[in-house]
Amino acid sequence: MEQTNTAAASAKPIRCRAAVSRVAGQPLEMEEVEVAPPRAHEVRIKILCTSICHTDITFWRMEGNHPSIFGHESVGVVESVGEDVQEVAVGDMVLPVFAAQCSECPDCLSDRSNLCTKMPNVAGLMPRDRTTRFSSVSTGEPIRHFLSVSSFAEYTVVDITHIVKLDASFPPAMACLLSCGISTGVGAAWKVAAVEPGSSVAVFGLGAVGLAVAQGARMRGAKRIIGVDLNPDKFDVGKRLGMTDFINPNDTGGKTVSEVIKEITGGGGADYCFECIGSTSVMAEAFQSTRNGWGKTILLGVSGNKAPIGIPSHEILRGRSVIGSLFGGIKPKNDIPMLAQKYLDKELELEEFITHEMGFEEINGAFELLTQGKSLRCIIWMDGAKEMDNGV
Amino acid sequence: MEQTNTAAASAKPIRCRAAVSRVAGQPLEMEEVEVAPPRAHEVRIKILCTSICHTDITFWRMEGNHPSIFGHESVGVVESVGEDVQEVAVGDMVLPVFAAQCSECPDCLSDRSNLCTKMPNVAGLMPRDRTTRFSSVSTGEPIRHFLSVSSFAEYTVVDITHIVKLDASFPPAMACLLSCGISTGVGAAWKVAAVEPGSSVAVFGLGAVGLAVAQGARMRGAKRIIGVDLNPDKFDVGKRLGMTDFINPNDTGGKTVSEVIKEITGGGGADYCFECIGSTSVMAEAFQSTRNGWGKTILLGVSGNKAPIGIPSHEILRGRSVIGSLFGGIKPKNDIPMLAQKYLDKELELEEFITHEMGFEEINGAFELLTQGKSLRCIIWMDGAKEMDNGV
Repeated sequence: MEQTNTAAASAKPIRCRAAVSRVAGQPLEMEEVEVAPPRAHEVRIKILCTSICHTDITFWRMEGNHPSIFGHESVGVVESVGEDVQEVAVGDMVLPVFAAQCSECPDCLSDRSNLCTKMPNVAGLMPRDRTTRFSSVSTGEPIRHFLSVSSFAEYTVVDITHIVKLDASFPPAMACLLSCGISTGVGAAWKVAAVEPGSSVAVFGLGAVGLAVAQGARMRGAKRIIGVDLNPDKFDVGKRLGMTDFINPNDTGGKTVSEVIKEITGGGGADYCFECIGSTSVMAEAFQSTRNGWGKTILLGVSGNKAPIGIPSHEILRGRSVIGSLFGGIKPKNDIPMLAQKYLDKELELEEFITHEMGFEEINGAFELLTQGKSLRCIIWMDGAKEMDNGV
Repeated sequence: MEQTNTAAASAKPIRCRAAVSRVAGQPLEMEEVEVAPPRAHEVRIKILCTSICHTDITFWRMEGNHPSIFGHESVGVVESVGEDVQEVAVGDMVLPVFAAQCSECPDCLSDRSNLCTKMPNVAGLMPRDRTTRFSSVSTGEPIRHFLSVSSFAEYTVVDITHIVKLDASFPPAMACLLSCGISTGVGAAWKVAAVEPGSSVAVFGLGAVGLAVAQGARMRGAKRIIGVDLNPDKFDVGKRLGMTDFINPNDTGGKTVSEVIKEITGGGGADYCFECIGSTSVMAEAFQSTRNGWGKTILLGVSGNKAPIGIPSHEILRGRSVIGSLFGGIKPKNDIPMLAQKYLDKELELEEFITHEMGFEEINGAFELLTQGKSLRCIIWMDGAKEMDNGV
């Protein structure tokens, strides 16, 4: 460590810009906010860039979460640290991640789980003391956090259990991608399914997560990767990311998607099907598309309506399984640095996921692009400069 | 091989006794039947003893399966073999098994599946030429096979893909148990779930299969094995087979079974839950009883009504999974000899599963014991002698 950590006591509040969501579903408002110093086990971060994930959209549209600073895909530099923070130092490049890793609880200590059970998930507040570090400069009113990250602000405060340190030379835009959606998709194929070489894979929903599943499946040696989406505009990027076949459910000549997948895979069905939409009817169709004997359905999409998945008991008995996962089974502090290395080793393709870049003040335009299905990931640079740091 | 295989051409029809099911749900009728010689790839077996499994009961009660010779848990001695049979010889002790293993198809060649895809499952007939080897001596009418075994007869004909050879010194009653139910339960814990040392396990339904799950879980080092059954008479044998806790759903003071299991396991839920009944509502409760992060629900029970299992999508996402299996993931020719060795090595307890023994002519009494929940397994000896060959 070349820099000395700023003691918590000496850190002062910072005033900076934040894109505050005040009314459900309405454009964010660029405001001046005060960001309190980090308390014990906390880190204050200067955000370099952020991107938007569908979960931001889901909560932005939902009543009861406002005023709030959304955003949970980002990368930044440590500005100051609170007491009892040894893991990172001022100046370190860090990823704030919505998933905690305390490294002490039974789940963190097990290879089988990535759901830290020690750090609570506290809606809108910091996880330890259940207070906020954000307030409005003009009115003094508190502003809510989101998923322990809140990256739609120039500065944010994040608990150390939600921080992953990366090498300072790593391209920030690529780091940003690894903090949620892309890691979720890659992890689902790589860790949750542990796709086997030569396998057949079907991916339902070709957003960033679904396309990242294809990358993960390709890295694991899958032979056939079938993309399913109602929007055929996604098929080109799907092909570039390793998909071999495509199905538009509106263009199957009256067959069900599972029937088409059984034809493509030689009659039995796919070895692995990934649901990346969050629709219980698509989950059921994904299940129907898996083969008997060992077919696995991996659920990644979050269904808003909490409806049950209808799995026919007599069909699952024939050696099939359904697996749910959050964040693709990724343990942030262990696995994200590993994925970063795979990017550097050119095993993992990330550039294709960046379809747009813009400055922070244009963030509402980035929301529109994602809700209209026109972007995969839009990198939003806090300093306004489109300083994309990669050679592609 | 000390004995020469009888050539198919020289084998003659055999007349013997069989317990024929003529009307759904009505007592079996002891009749004289003719058992044709084995054709190519077939083996004719002199049954030593058989037992009754719930699947026999299910099909016996169902219209459209008659006249039929049921029975698919048994052991016998090879009486003659058809052409192209090299794997066994006359005089060998063999287990006929309802599950085929051709050893050639993609599923047989994979460690991940035990569902042979080459040998068809042909209701009531021999799998290769779809004919029957049984006929009535008095009327000449053909009689149906059951699950490629039909062991409620003194002699039966079985395809070589459904045959497992055992050492002639192995106790026949114990061999009989390994041909279906017990292997299903042990295999579900041992192979399908691959229960980890120190785990918590809950078993729903304490018939022979559920109690065998407890044995498998104990062999794999489970720490807590919770038995759930409406019949508290099952708890004693459950304790002897390694269960540590018991829940009678009618005696929980208004709590749900999953609430009680969460209490017993310290709040999170069980690592593994096994459904051994075939009730979709119990499957859903078993799922609710698993912990987040890595909880697995293993389905063994066959639900007659083909109803879907209602799995809440937002709950399975928290790192849980639901796994279906037939025959506990057991590959007959590989795994049954291994389980037999575990019995000889005193790692696997089998004696406790035998609650009754009787002669072949008493078979309808054995049906009554099982349907009334009074027996686990009743060994039915073909020669009438109760020659139980073990030291317990």
